[in-house]
Amino acid sequence: MTKGSSVGVKRNANLSNCESELFFWKLRLKVQSHLAIYPNSKVISLAVGDATEPIPQSITCAVEKYVHSLSTREGFSGYGIHQGLESLRTRIVEQLYNGLGVKTSEIFVSDGAKGCLSRLLMMFGSGLTLALQDATYPVINQLCSLFGQNIVYLAKKSEDDFFPDLSNAPHTDLIYFCSPNNPTGIAATKKNLEELVSFAKKNGSIILYDAVYSAFVEDIDCAKSIYEIPGAREVAIEVNSFSKLAGFTGVRLGWSIIPESVVFANGKSVLQDFHKVTLLTAPAGASSIAQAGGLAALSSESFKDVLKIIEHYKENARILLKAFASYGLEAFGGRNSPYIWLKIAGKSSEDVCDEWLERAHVLASPGVFFGPAGEGFLRISAFGHREDIIEAVERLDAIMLPCKSC
Amino acid sequence: MTKGSSVGVKRNANLSNCESELFFWKLRLKVQSHLAIYPNSKVISLAVGDATEPIPQSITCAVEKYVHSLSTREGFSGYGIHQGLESLRTRIVEQLYNGLGVKTSEIFVSDGAKGCLSRLLMMFGSGLTLALQDATYPVINQLCSLFGQNIVYLAKKSEDDFFPDLSNAPHTDLIYFCSPNNPTGIAATKKNLEELVSFAKKNGSIILYDAVYSAFVEDIDCAKSIYEIPGAREVAIEVNSFSKLAGFTGVRLGWSIIPESVVFANGKSVLQDFHKVTLLTAPAGASSIAQAGGLAALSSESFKDVLKIIEHYKENARILLKAFASYGLEAFGGRNSPYIWLKIAGKSSEDVCDEWLERAHVLASPGVFFGPAGEGFLRISAFGHREDIIEAVERLDAIMLPCKSC
Repeated sequence: MTKGSSVGVKRNANLSNCESELFFWKLRLKVQSHLAIYPNSKVISLAVGDATEPIPQSITCAVEKYVHSLSTREGFSGYGIHQGLESLRTRIVEQLYNGLGVKTSEIFVSDGAKGCLSRLLMMFGSGLTLALQDATYPVINQLCSLFGQNIVYLAKKSEDDFFPDLSNAPHTDLIYFCSPNNPTGIAATKKNLEELVSFAKKNGSIILYDAVYSAFVEDIDCAKSIYEIPGAREVAIEVNSFSKLAGFTGVRLGWSIIPESVVFANGKSVLQDFHKVTLLTAPAGASSIAQAGGLAALSSESFKDVLKIIEHYKENARILLKAFASYGLEAFGGRNSPYIWLKIAGKSSEDVCDEWLERAHVLASPGVFFGPAGEGFLRISAFGHREDIIEAVERLDAIMLPCKSC
Repeated sequence: MTKGSSVGVKRNANLSNCESELFFWKLRLKVQSHLAIYPNSKVISLAVGDATEPIPQSITCAVEKYVHSLSTREGFSGYGIHQGLESLRTRIVEQLYNGLGVKTSEIFVSDGAKGCLSRLLMMFGSGLTLALQDATYPVINQLCSLFGQNIVYLAKKSEDDFFPDLSNAPHTDLIYFCSPNNPTGIAATKKNLEELVSFAKKNGSIILYDAVYSAFVEDIDCAKSIYEIPGAREVAIEVNSFSKLAGFTGVRLGWSIIPESVVFANGKSVLQDFHKVTLLTAPAGASSIAQAGGLAALSSESFKDVLKIIEHYKENARILLKAFASYGLEAFGGRNSPYIWLKIAGKSSEDVCDEWLERAHVLASPGVFFGPAGEGFLRISAFGHREDIIEAVERLDAIMLPCKSC
């Protein structure tokens, strides 16, 4: 327990597995280098998955009112409860999980999906095995490595079928599964998810289901929540967020759902342990102001405004998909997701990215930034102002379409 | 890496060290039992360290304005940077660390002190040794256990000198040190802190200095920041928060400072590792709305209002200290801190707590809830509306003072 000499504090060995630059830093460097050569170019980014449209006034007005109340004797409140406002948890269930058996007591409001995931990984502790889709948002890989999880990848079924081949998959303690997936933009079908739940059940695994893009799901054969799948309540924890749902990427608000029926090998309740971890690491819960925003966003009035903005990004995706089709390129996603996974051929994804930036001042994310399986693709984000999307398409048309005047 | 059978997921062994109820749950149960017997009693709590006074309007107005801007094309912004707004970090340095050599690049804005501490512990990883003061806020002990740290306690010098006896202290990797301390309300003197820094230097330890009550420090021989102590920049990380400074317990905003000169045994920068951990676990930083509040709170205009509220709590503490003196009880703290550490004799702290609740409907925290060294004391919180403090004193007078009419 004690040390006799002045050796200094040992660095966490897990951090040596997290040293590579994160993709958004790599993208930032690309833009910086580009602007050094073309200082007056207006780069349009199709590379970042961040909300661009203002938050509806029906939401911000409610938040302003709440903020004002904090300056009054009657309205001021201090520490919130670790699990989040009961009223917000009730509204999450009513608006987003109606009929799926999710209980308000199973919901934990947090400062966003990364906060949820970090706390889940803190709870599970280190040394477990964890499976990831290939490709996966690269922060996840490093986050799991930070917590000392042993990561394996689930190979996809085939070149153009992005669901993992579970018949040959390794058995792991945890399976992180994102649908609609970032970066591929592919939403797993209900049939896929039934297979996943059954696979997890057979192996005694717990699924960490990341549904942060679920508001974009429109296809009837796809699920917005893992709890649409029978049996999921025994094996799946769902993580979700207001970031992409309501433009709260800066406001910070998310939630996770830990069904009471998910248990550890010793029969102990995962929900109870998550209570403890949340009480220790975020005893006051998420910002009360952000929670006021979430409560407003899920009210029947504002929710219509929220869906209009999702529709705006979906229309962006349709415009982009149409353009890519006109270039003769094959594209995945962009339907149940704000991301398009654009197939490129003959060149590396980073070369195509650099070429677009150089010739059209348009930034896309090289697929290889999302892992080796991302090579051969670009991730195109449909977040953006409409005029920027249209201008990006015009610029890409100019370099991708055969010259009409020739 | 893979498992062959359906054994289920093993529970994190560290969690078995975190199973005891947290003190605020124990207090809640006490009040519930009390109200079951006296359903109409108005319990006044002197047990909770939570802001009670409204946030100054000069702050909430600025926040309302910011929230409104999020509904406009020009004002909307998405993901923030992981480290927090440069403008806020600059203001933290200017308003709170003027002349202490702290750089804006060393500050990480977060959702509160627990968020900072959790991320610091994630960074350090498990298996290190960590020293705690006796007594310490009990969440800290369990939080460190969750991350797999091996905890030792620093015995205090004597019954009534709460600074640890460092001449006989074990050498640990980390030293968590809270000043002004919760629960004792004692602020270490600059001389104490010089000894602590020198002890850490000699042993190659890193100090995690929790300064969340620093705004209450008034004595000239005490420090508001560890960086007032020469050499601290090589061995100390400071954690702080807007919670007790500006009544942001519900709003959630804090910061940590990692001087660039703090290094691991291998010479690697702690600051660089903390960048990585923050990028992985909170890549978007703290809520932009809470940050707008922090920026306002530290403006020269609002900061005066903030200090008035601190003064309100200090006056509460003086009223309480006067009452305790009139009962012939010895009290510590309550001068550079919102907490009074009230010495009781002859009975257990829980018995005295129960007696006050039963006879005066006043709730205090039994010292024993803060560890064995807390036995023999009550923690009295000076947070509260003035009239509640006055009424609590009247009720305590009635049971503590000799009957005047007798």
